[in-house]
Amino acid sequence: MKKPTHIGMDLQFEWEDVNAFVRQPDGSLFSWCERYHFYRHLIYGIVNKSQSDIILKWDAEEIYWGPGESLLQRLESEGIVRQVFPIHVETKRKELLGSWALNWLDFTKQPIDNVYSYFGTKIAVYFAFLGMYTRWMLFPAVLGLISQLIDFGPFQLLVLPVFFVCITLWAVVFFQFWKRKNSALLTKWQISYSVGADPGYDLGYKISGKEWSSIQSPVEIAGKEEQDRRKDKEKFQREEWFGAFLRVRNDAIVILSIICLQLPFELAYAHLYEVVGSDVIKFGLTAIYLFLIQHFTRIGGKVSVQLINHEKNVSREYRADSLVYKVFGLYFMQSYIGLFYHALLHRNFMTLRQVLIQRLIISEVLENLWENSFPYLKYSYKKHKVRKKKRHEKGSTKGRIQFASRVEKEYLKPSYSASIGEELEDGLFDDFLELALQFGMIMMFACAFPLAFAFAALNNITEIRTDALKLLVMMKRPVPRAAVTIGAWLNIFQFLIVMSICTNSALLVCLYDQEGKWKIEPGLAAILVMEHVLLLIKFGVSRFVPEEPAWVRANRVKNATQAQHLCSKRLLRTISAREQRFH
Amino acid sequence: MKKPTHIGMDLQFEWEDVNAFVRQPDGSLFSWCERYHFYRHLIYGIVNKSQSDIILKWDAEEIYWGPGESLLQRLESEGIVRQVFPIHVETKRKELLGSWALNWLDFTKQPIDNVYSYFGTKIAVYFAFLGMYTRWMLFPAVLGLISQLIDFGPFQLLVLPVFFVCITLWAVVFFQFWKRKNSALLTKWQISYSVGADPGYDLGYKISGKEWSSIQSPVEIAGKEEQDRRKDKEKFQREEWFGAFLRVRNDAIVILSIICLQLPFELAYAHLYEVVGSDVIKFGLTAIYLFLIQHFTRIGGKVSVQLINHEKNVSREYRADSLVYKVFGLYFMQSYIGLFYHALLHRNFMTLRQVLIQRLIISEVLENLWENSFPYLKYSYKKHKVRKKKRHEKGSTKGRIQFASRVEKEYLKPSYSASIGEELEDGLFDDFLELALQFGMIMMFACAFPLAFAFAALNNITEIRTDALKLLVMMKRPVPRAAVTIGAWLNIFQFLIVMSICTNSALLVCLYDQEGKWKIEPGLAAILVMEHVLLLIKFGVSRFVPEEPAWVRANRVKNATQAQHLCSKRLLRTISAREQRFH
Repeated sequence: MKKPTHIGMDLQFEWEDVNAFVRQPDGSLFSWCERYHFYRHLIYGIVNKSQSDIILKWDAEEIYWGPGESLLQRLESEGIVRQVFPIHVETKRKELLGSWALNWLDFTKQPIDNVYSYFGTKIAVYFAFLGMYTRWMLFPAVLGLISQLIDFGPFQLLVLPVFFVCITLWAVVFFQFWKRKNSALLTKWQISYSVGADPGYDLGYKISGKEWSSIQSPVEIAGKEEQDRRKDKEKFQREEWFGAFLRVRNDAIVILSIICLQLPFELAYAHLYEVVGSDVIKFGLTAIYLFLIQHFTRIGGKVSVQLINHEKNVSREYRADSLVYKVFGLYFMQSYIGLFYHALLHRNFMTLRQVLIQRLIISEVLENLWENSFPYLKYSYKKHKVRKKKRHEKGSTKGRIQFASRVEKEYLKPSYSASIGEELEDGLFDDFLELALQFGMIMMFACAFPLAFAFAALNNITEIRTDALKLLVMMKRPVPRAAVTIGAWLNIFQFLIVMSICTNSALLVCLYDQEGKWKIEPGLAAILVMEHVLLLIKFGVSRFVPEEPAWVRANRVKNATQAQHLCSKRLLRTISAREQRFH
Repeated sequence: MKKPTHIGMDLQFEWEDVNAFVRQPDGSLFSWCERYHFYRHLIYGIVNKSQSDIILKWDAEEIYWGPGESLLQRLESEGIVRQVFPIHVETKRKELLGSWALNWLDFTKQPIDNVYSYFGTKIAVYFAFLGMYTRWMLFPAVLGLISQLIDFGPFQLLVLPVFFVCITLWAVVFFQFWKRKNSALLTKWQISYSVGADPGYDLGYKISGKEWSSIQSPVEIAGKEEQDRRKDKEKFQREEWFGAFLRVRNDAIVILSIICLQLPFELAYAHLYEVVGSDVIKFGLTAIYLFLIQHFTRIGGKVSVQLINHEKNVSREYRADSLVYKVFGLYFMQSYIGLFYHALLHRNFMTLRQVLIQRLIISEVLENLWENSFPYLKYSYKKHKVRKKKRHEKGSTKGRIQFASRVEKEYLKPSYSASIGEELEDGLFDDFLELALQFGMIMMFACAFPLAFAFAALNNITEIRTDALKLLVMMKRPVPRAAVTIGAWLNIFQFLIVMSICTNSALLVCLYDQEGKWKIEPGLAAILVMEHVLLLIKFGVSRFVPEEPAWVRANRVKNATQAQHLCSKRLLRTISAREQRFH
């Protein structure tokens, strides 16, 4: 366990030196994520230290607890312990409910520090992002309203291009300032992220474990190191290239299957919807479509998880990011291909606007309701079933059945898990996905429907509360995660900005050329498409090819870890002793 | 002075602990850059420690050396010491001459480690870049030759677009791999650059100086810090915004003056050159143009330096980068506006190709000759003058006059300084500028003249030798600099790639549409221009707005520095003691 000290360095924590360490914003010594991992480590660390089996008795059963075996794992495999999960802290939960989830006075202000101490970094970062995004959203919302409500007379023609330029600049500046906000938050929470990028948590651990021996006697190792360095470097290079090859292959599989399988399907639906006249058939068509697409998405998610399990990703957060990229492709097609079809191919702006309003208002409201009521209904049903069972066991039909404990009640609550790829992601996946799809919708079709921003702003103000409520009331307390940024989603948002520049230009062309007078030669069109693809590649490569070879990175992390181990003990004792003298 | 130790941490260097520190690739304990700064520190550190003036005698003059005054500074102001500069090491210089500058067998392979130990990081990084660039250049060179020499029959139409796609991918991948190579080089040279980005050298020093007191007793300070932290943060924020404002204002001044003053001038020249028939007048026109543009550039450089001196940049390398951005604008206009004019406005491909060949071959050859002969001629003239003077003093006209020492001879050599903004940059500015202009020329007009890559490759193989020769033979040994990457130039190269995607698309349009049949409506053209500008802004902002607020960065650097100071002494003694036992 490494923790920042008062002198600002991450050092090995030891109990005697407790005074030397910086405390969390809420005064506790360890963050919630750290505490959670301690607890798990402790309770899973109870092993049978004797030489022979120990026999445990439960009802009539006898359980053999083998030597060296973890007690909890044994009990889990026998089904006696059903699940190990963190439970809510009632006082803090109620406090947060009042100051956060049910606080409608502060529109976008949230008690982020308290959220951080209660839920950990990743969830706090999500809500910080959502709050800042909503706050900044007010600017394009007002702009959109103005552009629709005021008549600019002779300048009316310029309104949409100006609006387009403004929102693009807004989005670009917003995300740059979000990065700054994120790093400021991490400094405030005393999280250092300099060594080995953000999700380097696992990497640091692995290496410090492997190299533990060298820490005892750095000098002997220094000699050996010279010989091993070349070997290590070659090993890292080989692994890096092999990993890159696997990832490229998998991405190619995903992209090809999306283009070959999903794209025709989506286009067929959009075309049929456009062609069919009767509203009843339209409704039926949509129902069939929704049913099929649900299945398609689920299969896609499973395939992605399978592919990712064959990749060599450094840590859990890398795997989660890899899933996000792959699955977002599916959702992107699913959400926008129909819109593109109406907007660009058929130049049917009425249908486009209809679909946009429909999606933004109806589906978001419905989704929010569903998101919040479905878990609650599930929970109620489960509770009901358990009550019935208990009543049955007791044999009496009268009187309220009380639950044995709060823990039992919480066990029945659904866990905060993702709708797709549960193994790698938690519920934040769905929340971020919703946000990204909304962002794509309002940005990419901004010129067709400038009011969208106002709807989105209103929706997000509600979203903060409903998401908070979901976490505090409906769900089990989520397992804290180590990620300190919004990770893959940032790149997806950036990608959507670039896409929106292109689609809005295309929309403007369609809008100004209602009569179809502007001809574009096929040759010119081909060149333009090629140019855009190349620009996309240019900016994609610098994001996806790491700037530092794996062996350089490993070297850096190893060095930092080794050095810290070596100097921590001696140093700490001094500081701690001094502190005690002063306090 | 901080140095990496065997355990891989930067620690305060102390002589007793010498065994704990890692040595340079050439076996010496300190890098050339570090040694240079030590020497300067030592010789400028000789001060008059007595209470009263000391009288020094020189010929008939008497010099008063005031108390606390640096001896060398006094002598410099009196003109007795003319210049303090590093001189060449003859054995190493000869070795490098043989293995590097005069070695024509290894086309692009260079003894980079030796260059690093002799010239320091920045120059070694330049030559590593030049070597890798030339090596990679062979691929597009061959491709260009194939595309021009082989007739593809029915696919001839596709040759140029395919070539365009290939070279774009080549350029994108090359620069990503250069970044990897750069970080690998730094690891090899034991330079750690994790704390506070690359040119953080100065920042680290400044802060460690300011905070020195707190290192003595971190505990007392910890209390005060809590109160001061908010103040510090506000101060940093104010400074950051003010600095950003100044920089934006200055950039706006530079960009506006380039567009308003230089652009019309360049266009006028290109237009006159196109219109005028007679070759004599063309020649005269070019002469006048060259004369004027020289002056214009020099004035531009001076204005830029003035502007930069009013900016608040953290270190010397930041100031140098700022100069590079500003001055490159001038050169960009000067080098390419004429070409754009011929290519895009007049669609005159013959003139474009002529101008390209002329610039690539004639001007590069001439420039290389000039670059190498002018300093030599200057040196010879100076030597001659000094000889004449000495002969005159001696009164004899017979016999060869020998120079008193090698130092005197080297003093006459020109110093390695930039042609523009000497105060902030050294000779590398010109070398990088030449490379960047060449890259822009071959990339942006690739489709008009695919053979350019072959010429550039040949030129660069020579360029490695001539630049090396210049450094080893013609010039004084340059002052080593702390920069560890190619800095601002990387961004300029990236910008040129983006430009080249756009210009080549335009060139392809012109080439396929010789008869001018492809019409583009003004509305469509306006939208396309707007789209491209927005895309450029999108990718510009993320480069020029730092992702970390200044106070977060300062906090991080301060913490790292403080902690290292605190633990270095105690730790080192242990390691050093152990090492001595083992050796």
